[in-house]
Amino acid sequence: MIKYLKTDPWLVIEEGFEAKHHRSSESIFSLGNGTFGQRACHEEKYSGPTLQGSYVAGVYYPDKTRVGWWKNGYPEYFAKVLNSTNWTGIDIQIDGEELDLAKLEVSEFRRVLNMKEGTLTRSFVVHLNESMIGFRDGGRSKQMKVEVTRFISMADYETAAIRYSLTPLNFSGEVTFSPYLDGDVKNHDSNYDEKFWIEVSKSVQEGEGVLVTRTKKTDFELAVAMNCVLEGARWQTSMDYSLVRSTATVKADKGKEIVFYKYIGLVSSLNYSPGVCAESAVKAAKRAKENGFEKMHAAHIAKWASIWDLADIRIDGDAEAQQGIRFNIFHLNQTYTGEDARLNIGPKGFTGEKYGGSTYWDTEAYCIPFYMATKDAQVARQLLVYRYNQLGKAIENAEKLGFENGAALYPMVTMNGEECHNEWEITFEEIHRNGAIAYAIYNYITYTGDKEYLAQYGWDVLLGIARFWSQRIHWSEDKQKYVMLGVTGPNEYENNVNNNWYTNYIAVWCMKYCGEVLEYIKKNHPSAYAEKAAKYHFEEEKEVARWKDIEAKMYYPTKEGTKIFLQQDGFLDKELRSAASLPSNQRPINQHWSWDRILRSCFIKQADVLQGLYFFEEHFDKQVLKENFDFYEPMTVHESSLSPCVHSILACSLGYDEKAYEMYLRTARLDLDDYNHEAHEGLHITSRAGTWMSVVQGFGGMRVYDGKLQFNARLPKQWKGFAFNILHNGKRVHVEVDANG
Amino acid sequence: MIKYLKTDPWLVIEEGFEAKHHRSSESIFSLGNGTFGQRACHEEKYSGPTLQGSYVAGVYYPDKTRVGWWKNGYPEYFAKVLNSTNWTGIDIQIDGEELDLAKLEVSEFRRVLNMKEGTLTRSFVVHLNESMIGFRDGGRSKQMKVEVTRFISMADYETAAIRYSLTPLNFSGEVTFSPYLDGDVKNHDSNYDEKFWIEVSKSVQEGEGVLVTRTKKTDFELAVAMNCVLEGARWQTSMDYSLVRSTATVKADKGKEIVFYKYIGLVSSLNYSPGVCAESAVKAAKRAKENGFEKMHAAHIAKWASIWDLADIRIDGDAEAQQGIRFNIFHLNQTYTGEDARLNIGPKGFTGEKYGGSTYWDTEAYCIPFYMATKDAQVARQLLVYRYNQLGKAIENAEKLGFENGAALYPMVTMNGEECHNEWEITFEEIHRNGAIAYAIYNYITYTGDKEYLAQYGWDVLLGIARFWSQRIHWSEDKQKYVMLGVTGPNEYENNVNNNWYTNYIAVWCMKYCGEVLEYIKKNHPSAYAEKAAKYHFEEEKEVARWKDIEAKMYYPTKEGTKIFLQQDGFLDKELRSAASLPSNQRPINQHWSWDRILRSCFIKQADVLQGLYFFEEHFDKQVLKENFDFYEPMTVHESSLSPCVHSILACSLGYDEKAYEMYLRTARLDLDDYNHEAHEGLHITSRAGTWMSVVQGFGGMRVYDGKLQFNARLPKQWKGFAFNILHNGKRVHVEVDANG
Repeated sequence: MIKYLKTDPWLVIEEGFEAKHHRSSESIFSLGNGTFGQRACHEEKYSGPTLQGSYVAGVYYPDKTRVGWWKNGYPEYFAKVLNSTNWTGIDIQIDGEELDLAKLEVSEFRRVLNMKEGTLTRSFVVHLNESMIGFRDGGRSKQMKVEVTRFISMADYETAAIRYSLTPLNFSGEVTFSPYLDGDVKNHDSNYDEKFWIEVSKSVQEGEGVLVTRTKKTDFELAVAMNCVLEGARWQTSMDYSLVRSTATVKADKGKEIVFYKYIGLVSSLNYSPGVCAESAVKAAKRAKENGFEKMHAAHIAKWASIWDLADIRIDGDAEAQQGIRFNIFHLNQTYTGEDARLNIGPKGFTGEKYGGSTYWDTEAYCIPFYMATKDAQVARQLLVYRYNQLGKAIENAEKLGFENGAALYPMVTMNGEECHNEWEITFEEIHRNGAIAYAIYNYITYTGDKEYLAQYGWDVLLGIARFWSQRIHWSEDKQKYVMLGVTGPNEYENNVNNNWYTNYIAVWCMKYCGEVLEYIKKNHPSAYAEKAAKYHFEEEKEVARWKDIEAKMYYPTKEGTKIFLQQDGFLDKELRSAASLPSNQRPINQHWSWDRILRSCFIKQADVLQGLYFFEEHFDKQVLKENFDFYEPMTVHESSLSPCVHSILACSLGYDEKAYEMYLRTARLDLDDYNHEAHEGLHITSRAGTWMSVVQGFGGMRVYDGKLQFNARLPKQWKGFAFNILHNGKRVHVEVDANG
Repeated sequence: MIKYLKTDPWLVIEEGFEAKHHRSSESIFSLGNGTFGQRACHEEKYSGPTLQGSYVAGVYYPDKTRVGWWKNGYPEYFAKVLNSTNWTGIDIQIDGEELDLAKLEVSEFRRVLNMKEGTLTRSFVVHLNESMIGFRDGGRSKQMKVEVTRFISMADYETAAIRYSLTPLNFSGEVTFSPYLDGDVKNHDSNYDEKFWIEVSKSVQEGEGVLVTRTKKTDFELAVAMNCVLEGARWQTSMDYSLVRSTATVKADKGKEIVFYKYIGLVSSLNYSPGVCAESAVKAAKRAKENGFEKMHAAHIAKWASIWDLADIRIDGDAEAQQGIRFNIFHLNQTYTGEDARLNIGPKGFTGEKYGGSTYWDTEAYCIPFYMATKDAQVARQLLVYRYNQLGKAIENAEKLGFENGAALYPMVTMNGEECHNEWEITFEEIHRNGAIAYAIYNYITYTGDKEYLAQYGWDVLLGIARFWSQRIHWSEDKQKYVMLGVTGPNEYENNVNNNWYTNYIAVWCMKYCGEVLEYIKKNHPSAYAEKAAKYHFEEEKEVARWKDIEAKMYYPTKEGTKIFLQQDGFLDKELRSAASLPSNQRPINQHWSWDRILRSCFIKQADVLQGLYFFEEHFDKQVLKENFDFYEPMTVHESSLSPCVHSILACSLGYDEKAYEMYLRTARLDLDDYNHEAHEGLHITSRAGTWMSVVQGFGGMRVYDGKLQFNARLPKQWKGFAFNILHNGKRVHVEVDANG
């Protein structure tokens, strides 16, 4: 845990500049608007440790895979989120001396993320090195007050703005502003140290410049324009490879503020044909400039107000919990707005490069409930359509692994539907992801009642998935049951196991649900059914019979004499012990134990059987839940950020209040307090949705049965009360919980 | 299968030059003397596809590991066999035109590997392009006859020689010889395209040059000297980075042979202190030159004669089988002579880079029986001592994986005792290798009766291994038996399985054998015992009690109602089918199926349960062997070169003559006929010993019981007879089998 930020209900505050925290702060103070975003790197030159990161949603590069020992079926490429044109850069010189926080003394440093307004500000006083004011002033250095405000507009997705103000405190002199756009950037995680961008065109005139770059292979074009405003400036321009720059020097009078504005227009070939990207970016920057900083900022704040109006969770009596939950909601909204069906929610959002590809099963299992309840139903639908659009690729993916007849295996990690990941035990075996994708459809239908979706898109996906399971499962002569061999469940601390209960259960459920949906469509949308049956060469009788036979004769490992479902066939052969028995210097075990030791231990990375009981709670009585929770919780080390929320929700169901709160705390401030010493790489965006689930489904006890909301709230004793809103069937439900219930 | 070589009892013959075969021929025609060796690259410049390879035993470089997804416990480095100074190079110009077989027309090309004499020859006529003889000769091109002979001396391990002769057939002119030593070479398999060598020193005068290079990191020095002889030559010299060269042009008269000799001295810091390497290499080259080609060659041939005298296997009535077995014996002897305890037998010997590190369990399971029976007992002992010397590293290796108290895990792949391999399912889980290393000690003692070895070195290794198993095995509360979870058996087509029968069985056997040896040492070498017990903090009572408890209560998976041992707990859940049911276009399955599909299939890469029954044949009755063979053989795809020999030997035991011969054929000519289209990467050196085992232990039926040899021969109906020699207890046993038995 690294705690250096101040607590505030709406702000994240860093006071005092310490270089060792800077890369973490770059992640934590990141901004985005769903279309583009970037880490909170300094605008001015910074020669200390920094991870430059500027990302554009949907723009990726298929980096050649790096692999130790090739296995048949591995993908050749890993599609990566791209570090792209740095548009925040503004080099500053004060009386010829470079403003660089790594080299100058800084005082009164304050960095603030205003989550309510989606705005990042920095203010500090910098003490120049080289030129003293002279003996009469006691040899004091020149001091310059710096105030910077920036935001990426939520109201106009193509624009951003920076206000950079300088006030000489104890001297007069001159300052040089040198704003630039730099497209000659690299990914830190490039496998072979390759640069992914090439320059297409550039121009710069006065304070206006535009730079167009293109990705190799994928040919995405990105155009970024800047439009700079500085009173009295006489701009000089310069260009280099993939770089445009304007430079102007102005007089700086003691005590008088100089304000510089950099307006940004940013568009890509996702939304414009390549030929018009440059002019569209220029137009956007001009539009921003013409609106002016204040008006633009006001529109941005208004948009955030409307988001918060619905999405906010209020927690009374626990300032850290309050800040934590808002931080999570803030970043989820920055990452994905649901307005573009081609986009999805990357595990690091716009805060870092790690994990590359943008889409994991996190979206279906964790993010959809959040977006479904805090946004128009259209947004969750969009996320489902994303997978529908990639159905063809999922079928191809399954074919590569030897499946036939339209069986679909969705990828573990993807950008465009193609598999990116290359670890056999995950890529080929962590196939439960297919189940989460089907479950998300069910979840959406249950919540919204939008059954039309099934006839339009949903059943296509369900059929591909059901077909996959029906081929992946086979008959065991020995057991006289259907079995599923060689899988990795959500608990990645067991690999290549047989009969993972969770995977077996969700697989059978998928086939069953596909059959139910089939009946619905046949009855209500007969022509859609006929069309799809023909399209997918669906042999109803034969295929449904197989699904039913599997359902009737599936094998589920259990512990004799109990209601405990076993993670896998061999689980009881393990030495069963509690995670509490692990010495603290061996935790997290993934940093201290060799992989084989982890695999043959009983320790669980992430909810597995319990993930299934969470999804299908209504299929089981409380005693089943209790026995399984009591069995597995003690062995779960929660070394995945996706784990504690599920345990927290189930603990609430079981009335285990202390455990529920403990589990909640583990994720709520994961990044803000940097529990795992990895905030510098970026934030755990997708698992932030799990924290929201802990509050709403856990403490709030929200469930949806037959399209109706139910609440069964519990107030943690550490809180005075909490409140949240839910959008359901177009109606807004406000839930307020206090000590009286 | 690619068949382009002629069959002959003692020769391997290639007629006609085809560039597409050249890289395979470079492997097949490789030469070596146990100390150094190289691929059969052309001496003269060759601009076509070639894999330059010149290797020095024991000289390696720890290349930084390339890995897709890092797992705790992986090694940082992979020690590689190094491509080192190219000493065969002789550029030739004829009337100013470069001799390059990729660019000139070649006729009468013949490349011969004389296995009896360990000599490589090439002869051909080359037709020059540029200069015609003129109209009077009908525009015919100049023709030059070329004859090259080379060998690497088996009589003097520091020397090699090349005789290069040119005869102008239809013209007179001049020829330029430009012999060189080039140390600026790369490994084809360098992970990050790094060069591993740097230049230390060089000098060249007249036709004599010396080049000293040093490996980065490991600081091995290699000195290579050349001493060139060409009548009438006036040498000019030149140098470049890591390169020395002499050049001389002489007149060439029509019909008159010009003979050039290049004598090589090659030494490394393995045998000389770095300061004297250069002069030692120069001395060796001079020694070679002073002896002269013929005398040196005669000594070399005499040494080979003494090797063949003992090691030869004669097969009558099957020319291909005869050539195949000699080819295998020839390469094994070229690769390892047993005179240096620091060396071992790399899977590719001196024929290619693939598989890097030099030592696998192949040595213990396959090579030791060959060397034990065809060489002085000292050679096999040397191979055991190699592992003894690496015991400390094996203990460190186990510690890295969380084992304690002197438990030793020998590496999967190594050069100096450190693990090199980085695939978790192999590195951490294919631990049966520890069993093979213990078994080799038992095998050696049984064969030689050299029990002193146990007191001197053997028990130390056995103790480390027994301790490893006793920690790796644990008590299953569920089964009320000891179990071993998460292993990969010899059949690498199942990974991370529980209770692999072979591993369970050999593990228990190791502990039992260690206990027996303990009793022997206590009784016969009490002071050695006391010393070792103190050194290893051996708690006899406690440790032995644990071994015995495990022995008494170990779990072995079996098929109910049969004598079949199961490969692993989940084997019977698989869909059991015969490999014969696989369509031929899906074989080998490792080139057509994704890894997960292979893993959950019943198909076996390599003898697993049967490997155990081969090692411990006398523990089981014939019915056990028969039931297991009948069960597993049909499912075995033999996609490892180490598999068919074991099946062949067991088939002989069971009287399955056709199967035995089929299995024998599968490996005997594996490289000569390039069954798997990979000869161009190098030969399967270690598995060559398996072919020898098939003849001697299979058809010859040789067994050793209580130190006594037994033979139970069967003659394949395809042969008229066969004969081999065995060295046993210093006595030579000649075995001759014909149709009469």
